[in-house]
Amino acid sequence: MSFNLEKRLQILVTNDDGVEAKGLAALIEMVQPYGDIYVVAPTHVNSGMSQAVTISTPVRLKTIQGTGNIKIYACTGTPTDCVKLAYSHILPNKRADILVSGINHGVNSSASVLYSGTLAATTEGIMYHTPSIGFSLCNYAADADFSACIPLGRKIIEKVLSENFGIDSFLNVNFPKLPLDKIKGITICRQAKGVWREEFEKRTDPQGFDYYWLTGEYINEEPNANDTDESWLAKGYVTIVPQTLDLTHYAELEKIKNWKF
Amino acid sequence: MSFNLEKRLQILVTNDDGVEAKGLAALIEMVQPYGDIYVVAPTHVNSGMSQAVTISTPVRLKTIQGTGNIKIYACTGTPTDCVKLAYSHILPNKRADILVSGINHGVNSSASVLYSGTLAATTEGIMYHTPSIGFSLCNYAADADFSACIPLGRKIIEKVLSENFGIDSFLNVNFPKLPLDKIKGITICRQAKGVWREEFEKRTDPQGFDYYWLTGEYINEEPNANDTDESWLAKGYVTIVPQTLDLTHYAELEKIKNWKF
Repeated sequence: MSFNLEKRLQILVTNDDGVEAKGLAALIEMVQPYGDIYVVAPTHVNSGMSQAVTISTPVRLKTIQGTGNIKIYACTGTPTDCVKLAYSHILPNKRADILVSGINHGVNSSASVLYSGTLAATTEGIMYHTPSIGFSLCNYAADADFSACIPLGRKIIEKVLSENFGIDSFLNVNFPKLPLDKIKGITICRQAKGVWREEFEKRTDPQGFDYYWLTGEYINEEPNANDTDESWLAKGYVTIVPQTLDLTHYAELEKIKNWKF
Repeated sequence: MSFNLEKRLQILVTNDDGVEAKGLAALIEMVQPYGDIYVVAPTHVNSGMSQAVTISTPVRLKTIQGTGNIKIYACTGTPTDCVKLAYSHILPNKRADILVSGINHGVNSSASVLYSGTLAATTEGIMYHTPSIGFSLCNYAADADFSACIPLGRKIIEKVLSENFGIDSFLNVNFPKLPLDKIKGITICRQAKGVWREEFEKRTDPQGFDYYWLTGEYINEEPNANDTDESWLAKGYVTIVPQTLDLTHYAELEKIKNWKF
């Protein structure tokens, strides 16, 4: 199947930086030509929320605006809640042709994928068998320039739709912090091996009580690899990593499957 | 190397059901013979928190008690925060010989692993290259009977330590809801393919405003497979799935690596 712009798609858009983020506006602009857009995004910043769901308390939903083919809602829950709520109560016929999440203010490569709310929302699309793409820009600034992401993101969306990609894998896309004419290309690669080593900084509040605030340092454990998301981003490429929901470590399974107890 | 009980281990214990959970007490009992125990657990229930980290607000740490070789702390953050805080401020020399998480009140098989706070804490152990095991019992009750888990869990811990397992994989262990003499054995297997299809239930509050509360249904997408955690649990076995932190879908990567843009 080749991509057919004549068909109007039903598109679910979400993010983890919150409904007011500039990256969300850029993502809406990216998908605007393709169909009817349903945005369900968190009311507040939800960075680092991973696949968290809200179980013990209820969530609220607020209609933000609706202009033309774009409907925007804000949800008090997590990015994952936003997606589940969209399928439950927002999307006509509880279905979407594609889910896009982001554009995240900040990179989501290597071990960052484990903590990412952007990619958790994308994972959730696969739970509903919707082709899903998470987008992130290597720039944490609130006023980051997303202009290069829009044409490149459209190429990726059109490829996903024309290839019928997305039955049990979604795409994790990272854009380097470069203007369009400096970006070298788009590459498909694997997740780099690395760890976040966080330190909680100990402080004392005005009442004299201790509190702890998270700080972090990323350590690339494959600094010399040339086939990872980290390495291609450093060279100025857009990276695409197809991600799995099956967390089995098959190589280790082979090694230990005959353990006797 | 065979397991040597003479060496006293430095053991980090955490969970997602909170510091008062019965499953945490059972886990402390499980590891009690092996060394010095540092428990850092959430003050409140953190089920479904996945790998969430607390970034926008600080967390607090409270010393609960310290008897003999057991020190217990409660943290106002997520399970992942608990582990990071333990390495930052609790564990002598910022290291542990083993991390154990649980015992979760409720199963963590198939797609549940994506939402699990228990397994997120276990994942975090691998970030610090600590051999790590997450334990869950297929029983959600607050007063669940964990007695069978203790001797079986010890067998698994001793195997992990004697085999030096746990450089870039951790173990996800699920116990069936059965008494010890009805459990058929311990098996090493893969994660079942399945999805959670959640519905947010719409309700109206006393002020007349809508709110939404999460409910969920698990769908096993491989009901006839006989090599998955789901299938072995149903047959009465303890299941062990080695988990990875590399979320690359390598089979899909092979298929799409030559996409042209």
